[in-house]
Amino acid sequence: MSEVSGVSEVSGVSEVSGVRRAVCPGSFDPVTNGHLDVIERASRLYDELVVAVMVNDKKQGMFGLAERIELITVATAGCGNVVVDSFAGLLVDYCRDQQIGTVLKGIRATSDFDYELQMAQMNRELAGVETVFLPTNPEHSYLSSSLVKEVARFGGDVSRFVPAHVQVRLSERVAARGD
Amino acid sequence: MSEVSGVSEVSGVSEVSGVRRAVCPGSFDPVTNGHLDVIERASRLYDELVVAVMVNDKKQGMFGLAERIELITVATAGCGNVVVDSFAGLLVDYCRDQQIGTVLKGIRATSDFDYELQMAQMNRELAGVETVFLPTNPEHSYLSSSLVKEVARFGGDVSRFVPAHVQVRLSERVAARGD
Amino acid sequence: MSEVSGVSEVSGVSEVSGVRRAVCPGSFDPVTNGHLDVIERASRLYDELVVAVMVNDKKQGMFGLAERIELITVATAGCGNVVVDSFAGLLVDYCRDQQIGTVLKGIRATSDFDYELQMAQMNRELAGVETVFLPTNPEHSYLSSSLVKEVARFGGDVSRFVPAHVQVRLSERVAARGD
Amino acid sequence: MSEVSGVSEVSGVSEVSGVRRAVCPGSFDPVTNGHLDVIERASRLYDELVVAVMVNDKKQGMFGLAERIELITVATAGCGNVVVDSFAGLLVDYCRDQQIGTVLKGIRATSDFDYELQMAQMNRELAGVETVFLPTNPEHSYLSSSLVKEVARFGGDVSRFVPAHVQVRLSERVAARGD
Amino acid sequence: MSEVSGVSEVSGVSEVSGVRRAVCPGSFDPVTNGHLDVIERASRLYDELVVAVMVNDKKQGMFGLAERIELITVATAGCGNVVVDSFAGLLVDYCRDQQIGTVLKGIRATSDFDYELQMAQMNRELAGVETVFLPTNPEHSYLSSSLVKEVARFGGDVSRFVPAHVQVRLSERVAARGD
Amino acid sequence: MSEVSGVSEVSGVSEVSGVRRAVCPGSFDPVTNGHLDVIERASRLYDELVVAVMVNDKKQGMFGLAERIELITVATAGCGNVVVDSFAGLLVDYCRDQQIGTVLKGIRATSDFDYELQMAQMNRELAGVETVFLPTNPEHSYLSSSLVKEVARFGGDVSRFVPAHVQVRLSERVAARGD
Repeated sequence: MSEVSGVSEVSGVSEVSGVRRAVCPGSFDPVTNGHLDVIERASRLYDELVVAVMVNDKKQGMFGLAERIELITVATAGCGNVVVDSFAGLLVDYCRDQQIGTVLKGIRATSDFDYELQMAQMNRELAGVETVFLPTNPEHSYLSSSLVKEVARFGGDVSRFVPAHVQVRLSERVAARGD
Repeated sequence: MSEVSGVSEVSGVSEVSGVRRAVCPGSFDPVTNGHLDVIERASRLYDELVVAVMVNDKKQGMFGLAERIELITVATAGCGNVVVDSFAGLLVDYCRDQQIGTVLKGIRATSDFDYELQMAQMNRELAGVETVFLPTNPEHSYLSSSLVKEVARFGGDVSRFVPAHVQVRLSERVAARGD
Repeated sequence: MSEVSGVSEVSGVSEVSGVRRAVCPGSFDPVTNGHLDVIERASRLYDELVVAVMVNDKKQGMFGLAERIELITVATAGCGNVVVDSFAGLLVDYCRDQQIGTVLKGIRATSDFDYELQMAQMNRELAGVETVFLPTNPEHSYLSSSLVKEVARFGGDVSRFVPAHVQVRLSERVAARGD
Repeated sequence: MSEVSGVSEVSGVSEVSGVRRAVCPGSFDPVTNGHLDVIERASRLYDELVVAVMVNDKKQGMFGLAERIELITVATAGCGNVVVDSFAGLLVDYCRDQQIGTVLKGIRATSDFDYELQMAQMNRELAGVETVFLPTNPEHSYLSSSLVKEVARFGGDVSRFVPAHVQVRLSERVAARGD
Repeated sequence: MSEVSGVSEVSGVSEVSGVRRAVCPGSFDPVTNGHLDVIERASRLYDELVVAVMVNDKKQGMFGLAERIELITVATAGCGNVVVDSFAGLLVDYCRDQQIGTVLKGIRATSDFDYELQMAQMNRELAGVETVFLPTNPEHSYLSSSLVKEVARFGGDVSRFVPAHVQVRLSERVAARGD
Repeated sequence: MSEVSGVSEVSGVSEVSGVRRAVCPGSFDPVTNGHLDVIERASRLYDELVVAVMVNDKKQGMFGLAERIELITVATAGCGNVVVDSFAGLLVDYCRDQQIGTVLKGIRATSDFDYELQMAQMNRELAGVETVFLPTNPEHSYLSSSLVKEVARFGGDVSRFVPAHVQVRLSERVAARGD
């Protein structure tokens, strides 16, 4: 499952005429300081930014959908114009339902670029949805959810990579798994 | 399983002295308009072009080998010099058996390039088989079989990405799976 | 001279509270259909899009500043919210003067990405200006002003690469130079 | 499991003041001539080079840990200052335990680079461990353990890609599996 | 001046029906062992291979057009089906004049790829001319005419990088310049 | 002129048996915080690190050779094992004269990598000199001497990009030029 698709659970997003909105899709399993840097900066570029957790029915994550949403919601509480939601199926169907014309993606490195470009072009071809890329702050360029989980699983210190409440949950989850 | 290997089923290919032939290997699960653009353009560069479906005994595809071959055969019926075949094992063994000295690969983007270069160099080292790369038409640069299957699985319109007969099969398959 | 700097001539841009604006900087020597695709799509993502021609005091172009502005102005006449301007010096100084917080850059290929990322990070560090990248339509991915000029100089047909009024000027310029 | 983590079994490495040591981590399943080229050249750049096999508890390889270590040990017998070891968990914990401040990684191609850069930056952030990259000899640039195993599985000749004692084991393993 | 353009001097190439021909364009200032590896391998893939030296009226090289042609001609004397020629203006005009439908380019590394892809797409758009890429032998992947000239200028040994007759000319040229 | 060549002025470097030394070559016109980060980290990896300013007789820089050396010397005064020197001609000749077997290069981004790999392979082929790459700290990944000079020329604040004494010289130079 790639970023053309995910499955919409809660949706409190309503369209207001003349309002500039964008959606920032992702797995966020869990949200990292790299994601939050992009979300906070992007929230200043739009009237409303929807962070949409992609539902992947094929791949079990470390955190369930509700928990991923909760972790992002806590972390973005200070951004008044950020809405957290989820979607399943095609991202472009979600965009059409929510009347959002812009996808915003953080981009870290050259290796991200070709894949993201392919997704962007497919989504534009499918539904005229535009994708804009916002470069990740260089100091977060090496962060990814999977790398953070791996470090946590082996007892490494992830306090500089995720917010405190995410760090607590990571520790609990790792302890519970007994990995 | 990568593109040094696949498992030859049917083989009606016979070598004629002085004839320029190339093989275009792939999974083709299913064939897309991107593949067909490369196949049609490549068929004008050689006297005979063999499209060879790679048999992967480790990975179950959406379509079986016979159906993949059928879908390509229908799609390339208008190209008099295209032969559709399959192979298992090493691509270079297939090339030796068929006396084909050139592998032709479509190439879409920079991210494809390093992997394909590795395969090309291995195949030349193993058996002196040369690989040439033909750039995909930019308007198909974002297409891949896996992305098309994902869009189809969630009910997206794939009519611009695959021929009509492939679209029908994709719809049937998705409906049957009840995904 | 790179895209952190250029030299502001005319400036009819005025800030209105709550208005989302972005600047699309470039040399535009001359504007191509690739640029226009990005400008037209970007103009739908913002309330106002400023196309800002970078003044380069070190490099003589084929077209002077006034003519580059004229060619873009004619080509974007149909976009009500596109303003054409120019700037010299640092792009971030122009952004500060015009109170524009977002730079929008079209991006064509992986090879563009590293350079643009470097510019984006420098401009954010210098003045908190954000850069977002909008992918070029794949069918224009091979277009650049320099390549179009080279084709024109040798008598090639550039009618699919630039608008008609630009094509006329290119022909005149090439004829005048006697290249 | 990536190269921030692996699980230390045997460890005869002892720190001597003023001695320059580096660790070269990897899966080595099995060691190839490409790895050996990097190891031999790197061993001349340091007083002691530790080749550390990463223990991956999630992924079953073709060869077990003890056998991978044995195959490297035989192959590097001629390098007096090469020590073969293994580690599980975080590479930076291994480095701290062994008091090694430098990770040395062979690097083959651009596509390797972004991933390795991410690992390097994470490991420096986690523990101040530095990573240096040594370019693979171009004539080995297409070699990887997985590609060599695939060629061997289908009966291809791998004698130019691995040392003779590794080739023997590959043949035995492939025969035993009956693939 | 890029590889859409160059200026045809001598032309002994004549089209024969059913004959597969390709053109390998370049500056060849001077021809290196990397070029020759590509030319020799490509000459086995086509009935006739035209090596076409691009005339660049804007940039003075180390060797004049006649000398570049001579050096290639001597080096390829053993390939019965290689013709050496030159062209000015657009490569596609040369292809049309010579009735050659295929451009063959050696490709060394990822960084070459994006630029070459742009040229390939422009040339196909301009005149339906196809470009295929043949990967350089890895052991020559670091060679370029400009690097060889720089090494020669400072007295380095270039005997492994160019044929003996080219090495002699390089030495004479460097001595004459008194660099 | 690339990084296979430069022209040795001062040379206080003497070889001591068993001492691990490396040379870090560059233009350093002028030295930036990005260079200094690499130099300081590299100085901990070797017993002695020689920073070697490349003399380029073809390209006039902003600062002369003596001044570049002075600026680096002041900036690295705190690193007891850093020696500043210069070289002309081939880097490998300098390495041979100084009996240094390792070149250390900072590397910022993927786009640097292919070029640096080419230089590394040429230098190893010419003289058996090895090159290792040390990744730049991500927070300096967008810095380059040329970008810093451009920002300074237009009156931008470069205090976060270069040491204070370099900033003073940049200001003087820009004022003197009247740019």
